[in-house]
Amino acid sequence: MDSKKRYAEYVDYLQKIADTRYAAAVLQWDQETYMPEKGAAARARQVATLTEISHEMFTRPSFRNLLQDLLAAGDLTGDQQKNVALSWYDFAQQEKLPGHFVRELSEAVSASFQSWVTAKKENKFSLFEKDLDKLLQLKKREAEFLGYQGHPYNALLNQYERGCTVQLLDKVFAQLQQPLKNLLAKIAAAPAPKDDFLRRFYQKDKQWSFGMDLMKQMGFDFSAGRQDIAEHPFTTNFSSRDVRLTTRIDEHDFANMTWSCIHECGHGLYEQGLPDEAYGLPLGEYTSLSIHESQSRLWENNVGRSMDCWIYFYPLLQAQFPEALSDISREDFYKGINRVEPSLIRTEADELTYHFHVQIRYELEKRLLEGTLSVKEIPDYWNSQYKSLLGVTVPDDRRGCLQDVHWSHGSFGYFPTYSLGSFYAAQFFSAAQKNIPNLAVLIRKGDYLPLLGWLRTNIHRFGRSFTSEELCRQVCGEGLDISHFISYAETKYQNIYAF
Amino acid sequence: MDSKKRYAEYVDYLQKIADTRYAAAVLQWDQETYMPEKGAAARARQVATLTEISHEMFTRPSFRNLLQDLLAAGDLTGDQQKNVALSWYDFAQQEKLPGHFVRELSEAVSASFQSWVTAKKENKFSLFEKDLDKLLQLKKREAEFLGYQGHPYNALLNQYERGCTVQLLDKVFAQLQQPLKNLLAKIAAAPAPKDDFLRRFYQKDKQWSFGMDLMKQMGFDFSAGRQDIAEHPFTTNFSSRDVRLTTRIDEHDFANMTWSCIHECGHGLYEQGLPDEAYGLPLGEYTSLSIHESQSRLWENNVGRSMDCWIYFYPLLQAQFPEALSDISREDFYKGINRVEPSLIRTEADELTYHFHVQIRYELEKRLLEGTLSVKEIPDYWNSQYKSLLGVTVPDDRRGCLQDVHWSHGSFGYFPTYSLGSFYAAQFFSAAQKNIPNLAVLIRKGDYLPLLGWLRTNIHRFGRSFTSEELCRQVCGEGLDISHFISYAETKYQNIYAF
Repeated sequence: MDSKKRYAEYVDYLQKIADTRYAAAVLQWDQETYMPEKGAAARARQVATLTEISHEMFTRPSFRNLLQDLLAAGDLTGDQQKNVALSWYDFAQQEKLPGHFVRELSEAVSASFQSWVTAKKENKFSLFEKDLDKLLQLKKREAEFLGYQGHPYNALLNQYERGCTVQLLDKVFAQLQQPLKNLLAKIAAAPAPKDDFLRRFYQKDKQWSFGMDLMKQMGFDFSAGRQDIAEHPFTTNFSSRDVRLTTRIDEHDFANMTWSCIHECGHGLYEQGLPDEAYGLPLGEYTSLSIHESQSRLWENNVGRSMDCWIYFYPLLQAQFPEALSDISREDFYKGINRVEPSLIRTEADELTYHFHVQIRYELEKRLLEGTLSVKEIPDYWNSQYKSLLGVTVPDDRRGCLQDVHWSHGSFGYFPTYSLGSFYAAQFFSAAQKNIPNLAVLIRKGDYLPLLGWLRTNIHRFGRSFTSEELCRQVCGEGLDISHFISYAETKYQNIYAF
Repeated sequence: MDSKKRYAEYVDYLQKIADTRYAAAVLQWDQETYMPEKGAAARARQVATLTEISHEMFTRPSFRNLLQDLLAAGDLTGDQQKNVALSWYDFAQQEKLPGHFVRELSEAVSASFQSWVTAKKENKFSLFEKDLDKLLQLKKREAEFLGYQGHPYNALLNQYERGCTVQLLDKVFAQLQQPLKNLLAKIAAAPAPKDDFLRRFYQKDKQWSFGMDLMKQMGFDFSAGRQDIAEHPFTTNFSSRDVRLTTRIDEHDFANMTWSCIHECGHGLYEQGLPDEAYGLPLGEYTSLSIHESQSRLWENNVGRSMDCWIYFYPLLQAQFPEALSDISREDFYKGINRVEPSLIRTEADELTYHFHVQIRYELEKRLLEGTLSVKEIPDYWNSQYKSLLGVTVPDDRRGCLQDVHWSHGSFGYFPTYSLGSFYAAQFFSAAQKNIPNLAVLIRKGDYLPLLGWLRTNIHRFGRSFTSEELCRQVCGEGLDISHFISYAETKYQNIYAF
């Protein structure tokens, strides 16, 4: 076998699969940004066809043979071996799921997405219950097909975060629980900073241009990406040279646009930093969902909600919106944007209580998978947990267990990556502070290039070379350690709430 | 054989091919409207992969079997038979071209597009000559593969306009020649109307909204389409429920945006009028390029450059741009927008001299195909023809034979459909005038729904049911007859130039 030639075949084939995947992503981006409403029906089938084509290409027996030839080849470079091994892993995961099961799952997802939409609109969990239960049974079967050690939930967690287990997450959330509760108690006892100025009038076009300025300053390359308006902000990409951010603007909610902009830009900077020469290959892809999220959270919270950041930006912001902010000092602005308050909706939560939202979902999914909680019992479980962990009363299912789309997509095991992302973010940021001694000074000057350069060198360029844990060890000299997040939170909020 | 089941298979398969074609169209639309510049390299390969996939699907032997089964089936409906017959025609045309030839042609197109870009930039035909010659030789071979009766150019003409021949076009252009020359001579002898007011300042946003108002009035459904900015205006669609128009705006050239808007909207109205239930099937596709162009030209010229149209719109326009138009009467505006003047660039030509631009290209391509003109001789031939037919001196290749992209794409035989479109437009419009007795009055009131309804009923809904000629016979009771165009032109310009 000519392994050089076979490897070239592999690259060519995988890049063609990537072409069809990215094409589907372009269609989805257009759907969320510019597509006229009557285009929806044809668009749905176009995306489905592209997805079917890329799936069919990826699971072809000839591709299996190609991968096995390359696994047996003795003369591949280290990077080539990594690509092949990762593709083989992906292929083997896919292969575990029989075709008829994939179809059944995909049909169940379509049905349950529809009934979730209706149930949320009608504010009635019972309308979602039957389809969700069917989906859950399928996810249990999926776990069996995929195989796992220990808890069946591990099989699903592993789909979003390779190597992630109930054992790991139980430990992480247990470590978080008490310190976070203590911190929240102290915060609750202290006087809350005012944040009503964030809901004054902020003109749309001026918000847009302030957001664009933020992103330019952060180093987003607008010749390799762009930003548009979408109802639910997201980031997507069609290569590392074409990264699409979206945002939304509410003229009476300045925070909404600003931190969503910074968050999505963090995702976008990561995508722009992935190695372009590995287009379509595993080494050109992001490490994991938690590492992706660590990049958005680092920029959103560790940078974007810091005083250092606003030492530079606040005078500019005040000049843009004098009517809204001339009577608000920089100190009060900083406190206001960091106000902590237990609430109902995960996506609107502050950076502390956020993790209880995730933890509740994690515990709930774990119980569903092991069978100690039934789908019927979800609303009661949900509401009681929100009461006990967050101290809030859930008034209805719409603002309770129906708020997120994930389950209706069949995504069980996804939520924990959001919290892991914040924990990695805090850990990476403290490593960056060590490695760039004058980082605070640079940020106060609005100079983000050294931080971006550090992220590029230490995280972005590796693509899927490492798992999250391996990457963390390499960057920080230790595995995931949430004490970085805890001490970041304690120091910051002690200062803000003066306890 | 269960022909019902086989027909359902056929529909499903053809619609999946359509999905991939339309997906490629979305990617190309994005490329011309929103894509950041560095996205170009990945985008090119993504479009190429989708094109390859849809071509591969269309030429599969199993599809051949499916079509042959259906051709032999005795119990299909009339429409089903038409779809199958048209698909078989398309398949048979494709099948005539060997795979290695298709690849060779596609590589030659890539190379010659690049060298055309360079040659135009450097203003040197010689830089394009070699690649163009190679392409020409391939097009000659293509004609042999496809087969033809009479002239080899017929094989290529037939690709863009089924049934179109040298014999037909020779006759059409011969009929046009003398009346058009006479008309142009009279025009040249009369005093030219002023049109310098069209190059006054017209603010961008106001132009945009005026263009949007025009299209709404024409009946374009913005819930099934949209307009965006592109450097070279075009129309594309991803179903008849998602039609994308583009325009460009020059603040010192009001005519550019306006008639390009109306022209593209004419294309768009046609696409929105195609039967949506035939998505992906021949009966859901446009009749031919000339019929497509007839729709854009009818709106652009027969409607959009008529006095009736501006009786309604001119007061609105004047109110929008008082600085530019308050001293211009409706009469002078009408004359100015219809000023006739031989010029160098086809896309900027008036509606009369336009056809000499097309005729020159037609004669040139015909000679290239029959071998009586060599590629090397193109510039001299071009320049001498522009001198003799249009009376203009071509100063350089950039504004001469290098101006259009078509040849570098391998499109030989395309240009004549532009003229045919205008001739069909005049003929259809005179049929509409007969069928809607108060049409002029309606247009003067800005009421376009009756005209649009007439086009929908008589032209749009038939898709590819008929050839251009059959459709024309059905709508007008006679085949293509350019006397409609000639008498339209004579009446109109006699009035404007008062001879």
